[in-house]
Amino acid sequence: MATLKVPSSVPSPAEDCEQLKKAFAGWGTNEKLIIQILAHRNAAQRKLIRETYAATYGEDLLKDLDSELSNDFQRVVLLWTLDPAERDAYLVNEATKRLTASNWVIMEVACTRSPFDLFRARQAYHARYKKSLEEDVAHHTTGDFRKLLVPLVSAFRYEGDEVNMMLAKSEAKLLHEKISEKAYNDEELIRILTTKSKAQLNATLNQYNNHFGNPINKDLKADPKDEYLSLLRATIKCLTCPEKYFEKTLRLAINKLGTDEWALTRVVVTRAEVDMQCIKEEYHKRSSVPLDRAIAVDTSGDYEKMLLALIGHGNA
Amino acid sequence: MATLKVPSSVPSPAEDCEQLKKAFAGWGTNEKLIIQILAHRNAAQRKLIRETYAATYGEDLLKDLDSELSNDFQRVVLLWTLDPAERDAYLVNEATKRLTASNWVIMEVACTRSPFDLFRARQAYHARYKKSLEEDVAHHTTGDFRKLLVPLVSAFRYEGDEVNMMLAKSEAKLLHEKISEKAYNDEELIRILTTKSKAQLNATLNQYNNHFGNPINKDLKADPKDEYLSLLRATIKCLTCPEKYFEKTLRLAINKLGTDEWALTRVVVTRAEVDMQCIKEEYHKRSSVPLDRAIAVDTSGDYEKMLLALIGHGNA
Repeated sequence: MATLKVPSSVPSPAEDCEQLKKAFAGWGTNEKLIIQILAHRNAAQRKLIRETYAATYGEDLLKDLDSELSNDFQRVVLLWTLDPAERDAYLVNEATKRLTASNWVIMEVACTRSPFDLFRARQAYHARYKKSLEEDVAHHTTGDFRKLLVPLVSAFRYEGDEVNMMLAKSEAKLLHEKISEKAYNDEELIRILTTKSKAQLNATLNQYNNHFGNPINKDLKADPKDEYLSLLRATIKCLTCPEKYFEKTLRLAINKLGTDEWALTRVVVTRAEVDMQCIKEEYHKRSSVPLDRAIAVDTSGDYEKMLLALIGHGNA
Repeated sequence: MATLKVPSSVPSPAEDCEQLKKAFAGWGTNEKLIIQILAHRNAAQRKLIRETYAATYGEDLLKDLDSELSNDFQRVVLLWTLDPAERDAYLVNEATKRLTASNWVIMEVACTRSPFDLFRARQAYHARYKKSLEEDVAHHTTGDFRKLLVPLVSAFRYEGDEVNMMLAKSEAKLLHEKISEKAYNDEELIRILTTKSKAQLNATLNQYNNHFGNPINKDLKADPKDEYLSLLRATIKCLTCPEKYFEKTLRLAINKLGTDEWALTRVVVTRAEVDMQCIKEEYHKRSSVPLDRAIAVDTSGDYEKMLLALIGHGNA
């Protein structure tokens, strides 16, 4: 469930644009007004606002936001205003330019979006970067990381609920064999994780747990410092229980010495319209503190206000 | 250029359906009428005919064709009547159930369709087989064939004309190094062939030819009997000059002792609406016989008539 709150009566895109233009005008920017509008419009409405803004003023709303705002507040507003597919393309592209930790972002986009939304991100990548998403990911990665990430971002998984139980059993056995041999980069293991539908994978991992006594991720903890193994565990988590993955990502981002705004912003903007309600519940359960309180303690100013609005604080 | 001939004034889908129903009625089937209609309608028109047929008679046109027709004529009419994306899904699925020669069909679909048409085939595969295309290809293949084919079918290549000449030079060098080391299954070589846009790949292979004295496919002929190497050469041909690939496929199918109708039908139905005119010209140049004459010599009856109609013989 989403946390985004849209008012019951939404102003026309033309009115929203006029208000935004006012927020940019004169000395200083009216950040409150920007939040009041953009943090309470869904993706389709934001798209219309951008189109209307371009048609009315001959200017790109994103460019105006970029020049009016700064720091973490700028990033959260820009990422939020982007169309989800464009935003995913942007996040992956940014990740291909950063250090290895960014492999997680690539995996996250590949595994937590619906198959068609991942494809839309690949289309948006073409339009924006004049290259394919997978060629940049392949270029950015090497070794086992590449072996896993390139098929993950190229996948177009089947989305139905149908499950082949025979196959689930035989593939659970195969996974267990490979893991017992510590063949974590085995092509069969990667094939299963990167091509199967989420329903089928779930059945396979349940079989694994039933027959071999441990959840697969426990068996993949042989060396807790191995970066490839932790990416593998995160992949499985994203494919089978994304809300738990995002809860942990938020928890680590907030509890870090010096908040990790890069991760905090990313998770809030990409999930507010999807499953942020579940993530908030998981967070509260796991940390004994509501997410909004944790965010309020760790952040401040307009950045804080924007994040809280997106996770459903206050009224639209 | 296509060879399909559509009459200047096309009957309504309802009229076409009525005629088809007549062709099936009574003793014997009116094959001539079936050819006269279906072989002269484009994909959008055939789709409308199928929809109208289902709405009018509550029956599936494909099932009726299947039960009325037989042998090679049946196959060519059925494959032709399918929507191109469904047809590609069908051809790949069929290939995953056959022997290794069918790896070529999988590669052909992956490399000669536009990136978006390949994606549409993947969507059609979901709808028809309740699985993803890439999982069946991965399941069907092993070793080097899998390493090449899975990324080929999963690719969504960039389609623009932009070329990075620096990259073309450095990747030509990289390809030459790998080929000199006989590392034909090297992951860098596969990365380049499976992720780059066709324009970029073309530039890279031109650089290869300019700097190292041979077209890449000549250097990939080290062992003419190696099946993986010949698939690799065919992949490069499909990506850079598909009409030459199809010309050769037709030539081999026709010149074989006992025509290879499986290949002949496939090439004619999949290219009649795309580039069959170029393929015909290539064929004539290379074999000194026009393709229609070669087909007329090797085939007969309604099968022959249907193939000739699709390659533009006679009037619509």
